[in-house]
Amino acid sequence: MIHELPYVLRPENICHLESDSLYIGDRRVFPFEKRFERCETVEQVASALRQMVTQGGGPLQVALTMLRFVARLMEQGKLPFSFQEMERSANLLIEARPTNTTMKRTLQQLLFQLQIVFAQKTSLVEEVEKLVGAVEQHYDQIYHTMGMMGASLLEDGDTVLTTCFAEHTFLLSLAYAKKEGKHISVLVSETRPYLQGAHLTAPSLKEMGIDAKIITDGMGAHYLFEKRVNMYMTASDVVCMDGTVVNKTGTLANAIACNYFHVPYYAFCISPDTTKDGLKDLKMEERDGGEVKKCMGHPTTSEDIEALYPSFDIVPSSLVQGIVTPKGVLAPQHIKRSFS
Amino acid sequence: MIHELPYVLRPENICHLESDSLYIGDRRVFPFEKRFERCETVEQVASALRQMVTQGGGPLQVALTMLRFVARLMEQGKLPFSFQEMERSANLLIEARPTNTTMKRTLQQLLFQLQIVFAQKTSLVEEVEKLVGAVEQHYDQIYHTMGMMGASLLEDGDTVLTTCFAEHTFLLSLAYAKKEGKHISVLVSETRPYLQGAHLTAPSLKEMGIDAKIITDGMGAHYLFEKRVNMYMTASDVVCMDGTVVNKTGTLANAIACNYFHVPYYAFCISPDTTKDGLKDLKMEERDGGEVKKCMGHPTTSEDIEALYPSFDIVPSSLVQGIVTPKGVLAPQHIKRSFS
Repeated sequence: MIHELPYVLRPENICHLESDSLYIGDRRVFPFEKRFERCETVEQVASALRQMVTQGGGPLQVALTMLRFVARLMEQGKLPFSFQEMERSANLLIEARPTNTTMKRTLQQLLFQLQIVFAQKTSLVEEVEKLVGAVEQHYDQIYHTMGMMGASLLEDGDTVLTTCFAEHTFLLSLAYAKKEGKHISVLVSETRPYLQGAHLTAPSLKEMGIDAKIITDGMGAHYLFEKRVNMYMTASDVVCMDGTVVNKTGTLANAIACNYFHVPYYAFCISPDTTKDGLKDLKMEERDGGEVKKCMGHPTTSEDIEALYPSFDIVPSSLVQGIVTPKGVLAPQHIKRSFS
Repeated sequence: MIHELPYVLRPENICHLESDSLYIGDRRVFPFEKRFERCETVEQVASALRQMVTQGGGPLQVALTMLRFVARLMEQGKLPFSFQEMERSANLLIEARPTNTTMKRTLQQLLFQLQIVFAQKTSLVEEVEKLVGAVEQHYDQIYHTMGMMGASLLEDGDTVLTTCFAEHTFLLSLAYAKKEGKHISVLVSETRPYLQGAHLTAPSLKEMGIDAKIITDGMGAHYLFEKRVNMYMTASDVVCMDGTVVNKTGTLANAIACNYFHVPYYAFCISPDTTKDGLKDLKMEERDGGEVKKCMGHPTTSEDIEALYPSFDIVPSSLVQGIVTPKGVLAPQHIKRSFS
């Protein structure tokens, strides 16, 4: 476990098991409330994921904890003791978040290993704990490594612009930079329509003792113009083999403005998607525009007006200075040779 | 009077006189409510302007109507019948909106003419009506001319990106283009923190029968990337003699993205500021960051988090294709020779 993490990223606050229930930290109401969604069945967990109770890296952690939960329910006789039942549970979660390929890949790898466990009829809870614990340690190690690399990019006095909630890798970069005595400030784009910047990133940075100021999504260019930004850093939903970065809507506008003002943009990526060569393999999804017509549930315009909600931005590799990966801070053009 | 205007821009909805009161259309609650702020004194009018009951070109129209109101109160013996009293009233409004230089200049010109009226002791109400009516006609003519010029820039099938609420000149451009049989679509940036795009622009376009879709302030670049935008059009708070454009925060990010994707940006400007050569004459104001931490009055983050609110963006002339003025659609480099 990494000790520098703020409230929302601490494992027990992402989710935890307690007697007969799995509790998921509700990121939708943070920082106004610190509440947990209580789930007694796998179906309820899947439903909570669909309803965005947690997001980003949250669903992966929930999925891992759910395997422990299912093993426990099986040993208690509350679920049929079979690999098929375990597989069914995992698939319910995979289907609840079809675009979360990290969760899918991790669950499929674990299912492969669990097939052997079921065949051997050893203690299920113990074996699941071993397997899941190893996966958790693996990610902790990656977060730590990437945090150290991110910190090495930062200089004392830097101001970093960010969009959305870049979670462990970005926040650890700032935590480790702070430990090294570097004073870093962060400009946090509020990230409409869900406001992850205002709800998750800014309060987490504040909690970590890092100077954070919220701006609206149109203001990044203004502070670049004023030479008050040294770097732009975000997470990534997908990184293609040609270095194309896919991330939250709003990322492209800031990346273009950074390019215009000669300020470098770095994206964090745990594992580039080896199945995607580039733009041609990306599907441009559109979400329900109704979300853009609301702010925290309150309508921002008349009901009969239309709105659009593109699910993500595609950032061409020419706008990306570097991609922070477990294998190093790579030029986008070097992703393919390091990961394929 | 121009007949194509939507509800919020129709003169009687900006403000009107009724028996003993001046009623100001409250843009803060539009489109949810169509309410008017009732003012019985000049002090109340000034207070309403300070509280942003109306914005953009609204304060100018309120100031003109207030001169009629004061003349009426003077003839009714409810205010001292003197030029000094008229001047005091005008200055109260000028001070209520220190950055509104168009209102200030117009009121000062009218005061100059009214000084003669008071000296001649003719019917005050009648004389004020003549003078103010002439100013209103002058602006209507300018709006009409600029609307025709804006329409000439648009082609059938175009999609225009816009920020904030560009009022008469922009909306008339679209109205006249529509009359000419051109089908134009508009992508409206919601324009946080006050949401003028969602509250004023989108509902006005909808009312005018023009296809409008709201996007968040970070999404403009996304639709430029997808080649779904042919043009970016905004109003301007100031245009300097060197063609530098000052406008609502969010304008610079879109202008840079347009430049990157080779899409032209046009700004509407009734009168460039001959006292400002360029960047060096512009003061970078910052407003209360608290506004950015709210959306329609609801807090978007914890109370102890800081936020920033730059009052406007400065757009270098190299990012501007043309400035739509009463004298033509000018290259930004030609502003000086046409207006000094």
